[in-house]
Amino acid sequence: MAVISALREPVLVIHGGAGTIDPATMTPEKERAYRDALSDSLRAGQQVLNAGGTAIDAVIGAVVSLEDCPLFNAGRGAVFTSDGRNELDASIMDGATRAAGAVAGVTCIRNPIRAAHAVMTRSRHVMLIGPGAEAFAAEQGLEAVEPAYFYTPERWAQLERARAEGRIEIDHDGATRAATDEKKFGTVGAVALDGHGNLAAATSTGGVTNKQWGRVGDSPIIGAGTWADNATCAVSGTGLGEAFMRCCAAHEVAALMKYKGLSLDAAVNEVATITVPANHGTGGLIAVDAAGHVSMRFSTTGMYRGVARGSVEPELAIYRD
Amino acid sequence: MAVISALREPVLVIHGGAGTIDPATMTPEKERAYRDALSDSLRAGQQVLNAGGTAIDAVIGAVVSLEDCPLFNAGRGAVFTSDGRNELDASIMDGATRAAGAVAGVTCIRNPIRAAHAVMTRSRHVMLIGPGAEAFAAEQGLEAVEPAYFYTPERWAQLERARAEGRIEIDHDGATRAATDEKKFGTVGAVALDGHGNLAAATSTGGVTNKQWGRVGDSPIIGAGTWADNATCAVSGTGLGEAFMRCCAAHEVAALMKYKGLSLDAAVNEVATITVPANHGTGGLIAVDAAGHVSMRFSTTGMYRGVARGSVEPELAIYRD
Repeated sequence: MAVISALREPVLVIHGGAGTIDPATMTPEKERAYRDALSDSLRAGQQVLNAGGTAIDAVIGAVVSLEDCPLFNAGRGAVFTSDGRNELDASIMDGATRAAGAVAGVTCIRNPIRAAHAVMTRSRHVMLIGPGAEAFAAEQGLEAVEPAYFYTPERWAQLERARAEGRIEIDHDGATRAATDEKKFGTVGAVALDGHGNLAAATSTGGVTNKQWGRVGDSPIIGAGTWADNATCAVSGTGLGEAFMRCCAAHEVAALMKYKGLSLDAAVNEVATITVPANHGTGGLIAVDAAGHVSMRFSTTGMYRGVARGSVEPELAIYRD
Repeated sequence: MAVISALREPVLVIHGGAGTIDPATMTPEKERAYRDALSDSLRAGQQVLNAGGTAIDAVIGAVVSLEDCPLFNAGRGAVFTSDGRNELDASIMDGATRAAGAVAGVTCIRNPIRAAHAVMTRSRHVMLIGPGAEAFAAEQGLEAVEPAYFYTPERWAQLERARAEGRIEIDHDGATRAATDEKKFGTVGAVALDGHGNLAAATSTGGVTNKQWGRVGDSPIIGAGTWADNATCAVSGTGLGEAFMRCCAAHEVAALMKYKGLSLDAAVNEVATITVPANHGTGGLIAVDAAGHVSMRFSTTGMYRGVARGSVEPELAIYRD
């Protein structure tokens, strides 16, 4: 048995999406609901880490908690496509081995992050899509749900508005959205350093409201929305997926550390506030490195986020400092 | 009108897959057929470049030629999935703008690389998958084909053998394949530098024989199988897609040049012969940089490949030098 006290202090960082989050339209009740949900997610992952669990199990625990919460655009709270369906994407990566798993375009899996993990650990593949991914998840005994599970009145109203306005809504990108409360919804993710010194990252999303054509963003793409490598860091992104894909955002953070010698925070700040905007997008990134440094940077007005170190009370934030 | 003579000399590089290519089982007739197909592809792209065309149009021309040839595992010659279908993937990236496009899991588009290009230029997205990608391609007027178009007796026999042996066949990975001629099939790709100094990369594949579950490899993943950025290079990969995804192979080449100061060839060699094998895979990479340097490196016994500079007769190779 590992002696927990001899291990390094574990760290968990989560995000619930970045975007135009306006204090003026946030009621105390709503803010409380978001804070409670972020806190629940952090405690779920923290519990795993403090029991000597792995970074992989911690990010799964934290992301499953956010997927099961209707407030976030992942799992239960996924937004609707143009034909009134929900297509979910997720990915996960193990920094110790660089093993990775992802699913995209799945419609009936309760927790896509568990499916991504099953791809990583129980197949020889990294990415499965569509009905094939669902068949694999069923073979692995993962919980399937009826499409109605993903129905939430708020998301349906969001689709109706988007249809009426003939637009799609990408994460929290204010430029493409009306001034309504859907600005506060978003992709979720978690990164962790465990007591054994291993890193892991996980990202899960419900995509974009009113999307057509089987669009896939950065969340299920290893290197764009998710990256983990013990040699550098674990990263999860949220924002305009297309911009993150065009600059390989998560892997770019690792490359800036490994080859340019930047600190974690300098690398995350460069990609989140310079590289992604230069590729015509906005959003944010969370990351942790093998020394336990944490960075949470974004080019939007806010990002739902939080950090839990060791057994210390988690810290939460929504707006800029 | 641009004065062609004042422009820099354009370069086109192609691959038709890497793997266990054994001279002992290669007949002169087969080798001639492969050389003719590679030559046709290089001439198609070279013609575009020498007429003052763009790197993007050159890589499309070269890849379409390979997609239309039944010898390669892309387009017409795509291998069969476990249920006797063909699922094709492709991606393209423009080094001048870092615009990118990709499709995955499409079954009825004659030239997936044209669909990837349409995603890049005529949608706001980077990646479309499955029936949604097919609907988009149809809207854009791209040529659709019946599933029978992709039927070739050689590929069907390959599926029958794989089914009988209960294995899947990943590109040219010798370790998972019987000693039969299917070892010589593979993903295709092209990279180019045009007379205007712009880079582009394109990759297209028919995936793996007897694959299940909607598996997607590196070919449609920006950063893994395809990357282009005028600041560094254009890259296309072929091999065990999972390994390329776990190390973000194509983007890693660019990062090694940009941040570690490696030459194009040193960067390509490191990723193809050290990083990819360290991630439990084999394969190869082709690349060109903004100065016109070319690199073609692989960890397998062979890679179908060729280079065309300016109006010089193309050079072809199959085995190690």
